Amino acid sequence: MMRGSFWLTRCFGACQSLCGSPSLRPQSVPHRLRPSLIPGTSFSSSTDTLVSRFCQKFTDLKDYALPNASWSPEMMRLYKEFLEKTKDGEWVKLPSFKSNSDHIRGLKLPDGFITTSDKEDYRIFTRCIEKEGQGYEYVIFFHPSKKESICLFQPGPYLEGAPGYAHGGSLTALVDETFSKTAYLSGHGLFTLNLNIKFKNPIPVGSVALLKVEVEKIEDQKIFLSCIALSPDEQMLFAKASGVFLQLELEEQE
Amino acid sequence: MMRGSFWLTRCFGACQSLCGSPSLRPQSVPHRLRPSLIPGTSFSSSTDTLVSRFCQKFTDLKDYALPNASWSPEMMRLYKEFLEKTKDGEWVKLPSFKSNSDHIRGLKLPDGFITTSDKEDYRIFTRCIEKEGQGYEYVIFFHPSKKESICLFQPGPYLEGAPGYAHGGSLTALVDETFSKTAYLSGHGLFTLNLNIKFKNPIPVGSVALLKVEVEKIEDQKIFLSCIALSPDEQMLFAKASGVFLQLELEEQE
Repeated sequence: MMRGSFWLTRCFGACQSLCGSPSLRPQSVPHRLRPSLIPGTSFSSSTDTLVSRFCQKFTDLKDYALPNASWSPEMMRLYKEFLEKTKDGEWVKLPSFKSNSDHIRGLKLPDGFITTSDKEDYRIFTRCIEKEGQGYEYVIFFHPSKKESICLFQPGPYLEGAPGYAHGGSLTALVDETFSKTAYLSGHGLFTLNLNIKFKNPIPVGSVALLKVEVEKIEDQKIFLSCIALSPDEQMLFAKASGVFLQLELEEQE
Repeated sequence: MMRGSFWLTRCFGACQSLCGSPSLRPQSVPHRLRPSLIPGTSFSSSTDTLVSRFCQKFTDLKDYALPNASWSPEMMRLYKEFLEKTKDGEWVKLPSFKSNSDHIRGLKLPDGFITTSDKEDYRIFTRCIEKEGQGYEYVIFFHPSKKESICLFQPGPYLEGAPGYAHGGSLTALVDETFSKTAYLSGHGLFTLNLNIKFKNPIPVGSVALLKVEVEKIEDQKIFLSCIALSPDEQMLFAKASGVFLQLELEEQE
């Protein structure tokens, strides 16, 4: 028999889709998780607390979601426009570190989780190409009370699919990443259960796409999200996507 | 009104998902494509012809789907096992070049398509990290008569999602890439219309996953594919996916 629930029984799975999107079979969750990791319908941390922790102002870590010389005038214009919206506190700019281990510092990984060393050179997939402008350039803004995100995305030439255009897989991976951060901050959404994407038009390398993500509903310990990827003038639809995440709260390290 | 069919009207979209997965709205295809690009139910090239062209034996291009020092003993064992199966001609090992421009040499891109220069440093997304073992290590074997593929995948530490595990987006992108090559060789499948993935268990960085892809049916100029991602012993299910591609034949360059 195929072991479809290994992740549940051995690793207890927490923090997985904050950090990507491996996931679980929802129907089997309540039976198998340790008591301390039982997904709950109420959580000790609110969205504001989660955001406040996620966006710590003082850190020695490099934030990759900041402008660099490769950003086009259009990318810069949009960045400034959304940065302006953070001034009244309604929107927040999310930092983006090299590894998800940095994002979850101080939180406890479940027993059975692979232990990685800080000395090893791990990188979050959407920050895998460090050379500015060659790979992913993106920044996510989050609106805590509306539970919405906007991701500004400028694909570089190493993300190519068809000659001159971003690979559909590169867009899908960034949709997953934007979903995962939105789901986490909106209510401890940690595991992607499902991801669906319909492609409409390809994104030229070097251009800018807006990924608009919304939490549609939170029900039965699941967070349902939607995404539309558009041109900045909102006249060109690149793709539509939906995703489902499982809620699970990480414990503080002792 | 949002221009959802820009790709159709301006670029005529061919070769797009051989090379990634931007795509089209199937219902609008027959009205808009130029006569020479009308998707047909019959094609001049058979699977054997397509495979023969795709797997040219003499080329100066680097094939990235060959063993290197980063491949684990398990990856090597599986590679040798499938390579053995190519000897009777039932399976073929697909080459993997740096860019899709190399894969479609000699074929004509539709008018309106972005023109890229060979001198520019473009890379197909799933070969974006050149340093051996850090990113994607994979090789695809294709069975022309069964229209099936096997992709051996060893994720490196730059594909991380949760600490120690491959990002779900990295798996999804490789599923898309394996789908696209399979759809193309099985019958001119060029544009991803839809991609759906359900995650079951995460893939540890450095381990090996098997992606088993099958063409489920070809109907109404669409190719329907399925994928299961498994551990090599086939006891652990990582993910299940499905995809739909639109058929479109590329013309020879004059």
